[in-house]
Amino acid sequence: MNGQLRDGVVEIAGNARQQFYDARGYGTPDGGNSIRVSRVEAAHLLFRGDLDYIVDGGSHFDFEAFFLDSASAVDRFALRFLVYAELRDRGFYLSPAREGWPGEDDSEWTDLTVYPRGTKPGDGKPAHRIVVVGERASVPAAELGGVTLAVVDEESEISYFETSQPEFDGGTTYQPPDSLAGSLIDDRVVVWDSPDGFFDHGFYGQPLTAREAIVDSAVQLSLVEAAGLAAEGHLDLKDVGGPAVEAIRERGRAVEGERFDRRLTVYRALRSQQVVPKTGFKFGADFRTYNTVESVEDLPHSECLVRVVEADHAFDPRELSLDVRLAGGVRKRMVFALTGANEEVEWLTVSRLTP
Amino acid sequence: MNGQLRDGVVEIAGNARQQFYDARGYGTPDGGNSIRVSRVEAAHLLFRGDLDYIVDGGSHFDFEAFFLDSASAVDRFALRFLVYAELRDRGFYLSPAREGWPGEDDSEWTDLTVYPRGTKPGDGKPAHRIVVVGERASVPAAELGGVTLAVVDEESEISYFETSQPEFDGGTTYQPPDSLAGSLIDDRVVVWDSPDGFFDHGFYGQPLTAREAIVDSAVQLSLVEAAGLAAEGHLDLKDVGGPAVEAIRERGRAVEGERFDRRLTVYRALRSQQVVPKTGFKFGADFRTYNTVESVEDLPHSECLVRVVEADHAFDPRELSLDVRLAGGVRKRMVFALTGANEEVEWLTVSRLTP
Repeated sequence: MNGQLRDGVVEIAGNARQQFYDARGYGTPDGGNSIRVSRVEAAHLLFRGDLDYIVDGGSHFDFEAFFLDSASAVDRFALRFLVYAELRDRGFYLSPAREGWPGEDDSEWTDLTVYPRGTKPGDGKPAHRIVVVGERASVPAAELGGVTLAVVDEESEISYFETSQPEFDGGTTYQPPDSLAGSLIDDRVVVWDSPDGFFDHGFYGQPLTAREAIVDSAVQLSLVEAAGLAAEGHLDLKDVGGPAVEAIRERGRAVEGERFDRRLTVYRALRSQQVVPKTGFKFGADFRTYNTVESVEDLPHSECLVRVVEADHAFDPRELSLDVRLAGGVRKRMVFALTGANEEVEWLTVSRLTP
Repeated sequence: MNGQLRDGVVEIAGNARQQFYDARGYGTPDGGNSIRVSRVEAAHLLFRGDLDYIVDGGSHFDFEAFFLDSASAVDRFALRFLVYAELRDRGFYLSPAREGWPGEDDSEWTDLTVYPRGTKPGDGKPAHRIVVVGERASVPAAELGGVTLAVVDEESEISYFETSQPEFDGGTTYQPPDSLAGSLIDDRVVVWDSPDGFFDHGFYGQPLTAREAIVDSAVQLSLVEAAGLAAEGHLDLKDVGGPAVEAIRERGRAVEGERFDRRLTVYRALRSQQVVPKTGFKFGADFRTYNTVESVEDLPHSECLVRVVEADHAFDPRELSLDVRLAGGVRKRMVFALTGANEEVEWLTVSRLTP
């Protein structure tokens, strides 16, 4: 059986509707017994030997020739073919997300619509809306959330990333006192006489300890913790004129630039939801978060890793893969906080998916 | 007991030699019974209550005052104090790496010399030569190898990274044929008729497969694999005039800039040692490596993750923490390949250490 290429679409006559559409979910019916299939679908039919060749004017294309012709005619053809073929092998029916095809998508950004296992194109709600990219693409964070990213790496292996909006379920009720005093020392703040509960229940800072030390109430705060406390009126600095929050922010900007303000915005947004953010340094993230801290002695597992990025951030898929892989390995959700300084925060969760 | 600050060093008289040096490894003897201790050591003695205060001219400093004075006088004082205190708490003796102190180090870069557990300062070979940095420091890769990096994060927790030169123990003996022909399609190369063993034993590329496909010999190569094969004379391109390696490199540079040349240099250096580099995308690295591949069906665990960096690369400690943490989680060594294009490769292994 052959197909006929016309205006970028392949028409297949004969009993194609029954054989390919009804039975196996390829293409879109043409009214009668013939169907139209996309180039990706046609290549797959050639690859499997279901079609012998594609006719285009006077040319006859076999799989290799049609693949090369399509790769030069269509954006990301090879990538989309690889993802299409793999998902079919995994037992899914899927359609190109284009007008006139089953389950058409109103987003220009979606490439493939995948139906739940056991259901056919156009039946019910799609299981995944797939965006196909190469590992060298730049992926705008603002376009994610609700779609599944299929990243084809340089060796043509595919990683799937599910994207969604996280919900935080904070329940940390500790309130810091209003009378803390600290010293700004390089890029940290030391509160020499911290009150009971400040570390143990609020999980602010880190005690300055040593075996048999005579000083046991000193707590070191990160600049972002200190700036957060100062902004809410809980902390003053010794030996500093003017508002403490400004002095700390100034130091923060001196050591890490405008990124400090964005991190502070995210820190405060989390604390305001009764979530405790602590440094994510050991995981290469900005923060790890605890929904509910009652006592540091009985600390729960931290639920999320948070990386703070600019509001118009675009992901390098390899860096995304690194973050998401690490988070999965330590059983945490990877959350990106998109924000400018002093602005609203948009949240995005990305997780690995094995369809 | 008190100390006397003079020229940045604290002198302690009385029976200090017996009490602090002989018994507990603080400072360096002065000839008689008195000793000299560094500011970090003096602060630790104050912190533990072993000294009451430090005299400097007319001033008497308690722990808090001496800490603040030292922090303004000495580079990274707070960081070095934190590392010193933690390592002592873990049962190590350690000395500041400075002239006149036991175990003095000839590197200006080392901050602290740590002795093996159970041995005293100056006895035998140091267990660790410690470089103390804050998480916001920029750490030149070329200075590492042989030292232990103690990174103090923004919340004053400490991560230790051991650095060394890796050895590869390659034993992959497959030789590719000289007659491969491929098509350059976007950012990959397809060899339509690959010979037996090319993928199965050489672990080159990735088969283009689908269930029940009629085509079963097509293998997709990454650009770096293809350029490596072309450079060694094993691969030509269909429909391309001129040397295949130049066409592939040009495509490589078009999609990832000069980084492509550096990655190719590292790829070829590994293959020349009979090590198989495959993409490290799923781990966020450039490559994962296999010392000895006999058959892809019976693939060993890959031993290393390799990230390619510039010859003058400086690490952001947080990114370093991310890479090393991930590698540890998947039981691989994290290796950095420092190189310019077409230049020698310097290798650096970094691993987490719990002293």
